[in-house]
Amino acid sequence: MNSLITICTTLFAAAYLLSAEHKPFPAVMPSKKPDYPISAAMARLYDEWNPHEDRGNELYTNFKYSRLNGFAQEENISRRDPTKVIKVDGIYHVWYTSRRTAHSPVGLKNATDTIPATDWDLSDIWHASSTDGFNWVEDTEPAVTRPPKPEQGFRSICTPGILVWEGKYYLYFQAYSPMVGGQAYCPVRVAYTDSPNGPWTHHPDSVILPGPKGSWNNIKINDPCPLVFNDEILIYYKGAPIERGHEMVLRMQGVSKSNDPLGPFIPSSINPVINGGHETCMFPFNGGVAALVALDGPEKNTMQWSPDGENFTVASMIQIPPVAPGPYCPDAFARGKTDGRGITWSLCHINPDGGGSVSESILARFDCDLSLDVDRQVFKRNNLRFNAQTYFQKGIGLPKGWLSRILREQAYLDQETIIH
Amino acid sequence: MNSLITICTTLFAAAYLLSAEHKPFPAVMPSKKPDYPISAAMARLYDEWNPHEDRGNELYTNFKYSRLNGFAQEENISRRDPTKVIKVDGIYHVWYTSRRTAHSPVGLKNATDTIPATDWDLSDIWHASSTDGFNWVEDTEPAVTRPPKPEQGFRSICTPGILVWEGKYYLYFQAYSPMVGGQAYCPVRVAYTDSPNGPWTHHPDSVILPGPKGSWNNIKINDPCPLVFNDEILIYYKGAPIERGHEMVLRMQGVSKSNDPLGPFIPSSINPVINGGHETCMFPFNGGVAALVALDGPEKNTMQWSPDGENFTVASMIQIPPVAPGPYCPDAFARGKTDGRGITWSLCHINPDGGGSVSESILARFDCDLSLDVDRQVFKRNNLRFNAQTYFQKGIGLPKGWLSRILREQAYLDQETIIH
Repeated sequence: MNSLITICTTLFAAAYLLSAEHKPFPAVMPSKKPDYPISAAMARLYDEWNPHEDRGNELYTNFKYSRLNGFAQEENISRRDPTKVIKVDGIYHVWYTSRRTAHSPVGLKNATDTIPATDWDLSDIWHASSTDGFNWVEDTEPAVTRPPKPEQGFRSICTPGILVWEGKYYLYFQAYSPMVGGQAYCPVRVAYTDSPNGPWTHHPDSVILPGPKGSWNNIKINDPCPLVFNDEILIYYKGAPIERGHEMVLRMQGVSKSNDPLGPFIPSSINPVINGGHETCMFPFNGGVAALVALDGPEKNTMQWSPDGENFTVASMIQIPPVAPGPYCPDAFARGKTDGRGITWSLCHINPDGGGSVSESILARFDCDLSLDVDRQVFKRNNLRFNAQTYFQKGIGLPKGWLSRILREQAYLDQETIIH
Repeated sequence: MNSLITICTTLFAAAYLLSAEHKPFPAVMPSKKPDYPISAAMARLYDEWNPHEDRGNELYTNFKYSRLNGFAQEENISRRDPTKVIKVDGIYHVWYTSRRTAHSPVGLKNATDTIPATDWDLSDIWHASSTDGFNWVEDTEPAVTRPPKPEQGFRSICTPGILVWEGKYYLYFQAYSPMVGGQAYCPVRVAYTDSPNGPWTHHPDSVILPGPKGSWNNIKINDPCPLVFNDEILIYYKGAPIERGHEMVLRMQGVSKSNDPLGPFIPSSINPVINGGHETCMFPFNGGVAALVALDGPEKNTMQWSPDGENFTVASMIQIPPVAPGPYCPDAFARGKTDGRGITWSLCHINPDGGGSVSESILARFDCDLSLDVDRQVFKRNNLRFNAQTYFQKGIGLPKGWLSRILREQAYLDQETIIH
């Protein structure tokens, strides 16, 4: 009897599958979108992704992390937010925020003139060089030190971004005067030099200011990220408004443009151009601009691309993205006809205990394949797996204080399974 | 002079910002899409997401993981791929794949009748119960054992999915006869009982068969995931084709429907309905069906939603997603008018060393807020941070063998920074 049912079932299913209305989707992906009915998800493979999915996507990659040599890891020496890496006369150069204080960060309330509030408080911009990108030699003094009081930035300068323009080097950075903290005013300043080895000269005024009252970036300009696109200087940044604690205030990213590294920089009329992300990471790519958007916002952990530097679309979904990436990108500042070849490695920072604001960060490197010039299939794989420590670490595991709340809530939430 | 430039710059920028054509985007997100020009990314906030982004999204959550009590962790005892959790007479029940072999998995080539190829080889379906979802009591024998040779499934039965229908309980599972491995034929079988405590009776025949030659699921039906939607039984599954090693073969998910738990199950005419994902996880939600899509495909690590169970769109992007989730979902099998209240917790599995196919897995729990009945704002946060171990673990850190290749390739890839 059961066998008879099975035969009937099989015949029925076979007849159904062979009927004129239905064609089962093939094992080998059609290279063109099929002309028979397909689901919304399959239509997206053709309309938004591509039939090879991640493996056929030049803007998809895994990030493979390495520790760096040459940066002494000591208590209260922090290094974070590297610039893009540049290569001049065979030497790689990078700049980054570095805090060297006698005391650990204590938060905004308890900070003093010498005790930092956060990991990026009381910081200067440091420089290191390398011949291979893994082994680095750090200078013995900061490349750019805080300007004297009362100039904007006397409290801390941080999150630098490098620009090369007409043979000169420009470092853009956040400049804090009052105590660093959630509500501190923060414009962008710049310093310049003729050589990556310095010395650097402070431009006396801020070059990118927070927006007008009530606007999306009216208190802070974070993470300036310069590049050259269509012969113009574009500086991307994250904006923060003074309004806080309100559910509808978002952190987003915008861009300002100039033909002069000292400005004036004119904001895009359609800012913000990225609807989330925690740090900026943009580079010329394939005739447009690519952006790595990580950590925050509805489009967290995506690669995005824009033909005009202002209208970005999601190009891929990435995993375990780097924090504050500063890629090696030789054509980041190229003028004239350039297509943007992409990147194969970058520095970034890691906060070893998974915290972020009140303990030391380290610089690390990742390799990747976001380049039109290499084909590293191992970087195109997805299905990344994590060990147990990843799931149970602080911030991912259930916080201890939550267990009693969960048990209390499930006493009334967890109804019996509905059985008909 | 510099001050004069700054004043001019500021005035210029102010005039620009106040001009009729331009209105800076406000700090407080407008609740309706603005009628002035905005960027593509900001338009998506309104068109695809919502102006509160993740915080205002019922289908966004973090996953907070907990270890479970009651499952003895021993060498060569593996537990993985839990079913949905059900609650009957105040007791939570779950079923899962469990392997108890004398030898560790050795891969397909070296496996024998008693030495497993993979973690899910030579397995049976086990059962455990709990009064709180954290502390579990495991039965002393399997709930469903492999059928006798030569019935389909005599080698291994695994990845069960539970259905409750007309007072009876049905477990659907993968059934392997030949050596478990990439190319082994694998249909879905079912066993049934009158009580969650069993005993279970094998239905003698497979109920969901791989598709016809050349189709997307022509060798395997993985991870059957049953639910009831619009009074019909829907079983979702991942399909695998026999074609392999070809760049254009994808792993995707489909659905088949029936009014009888023993079938026949008729595949959707627009299968596949999910364009990636490694395991199935669907549950009724807000009048439609929600899906957690993790690990594989261009839409990896997303929550998706479909009004009809077949046409899914991306609802949110998630981080550190669970592997093989089996949520507690009391209305998963409800008939008649139900809206789908969602889920607040689930079991899942973790492979402690981050591998997957040849070492033991453990069951774990996660709590979340994918429910219309709770408002746990801490679960709606993004900006998840990871400790250093996460970045340098096996599979995420740069593989040792790659360093020499990277150094070799960058010798010709890493051109000097282009300087004009």
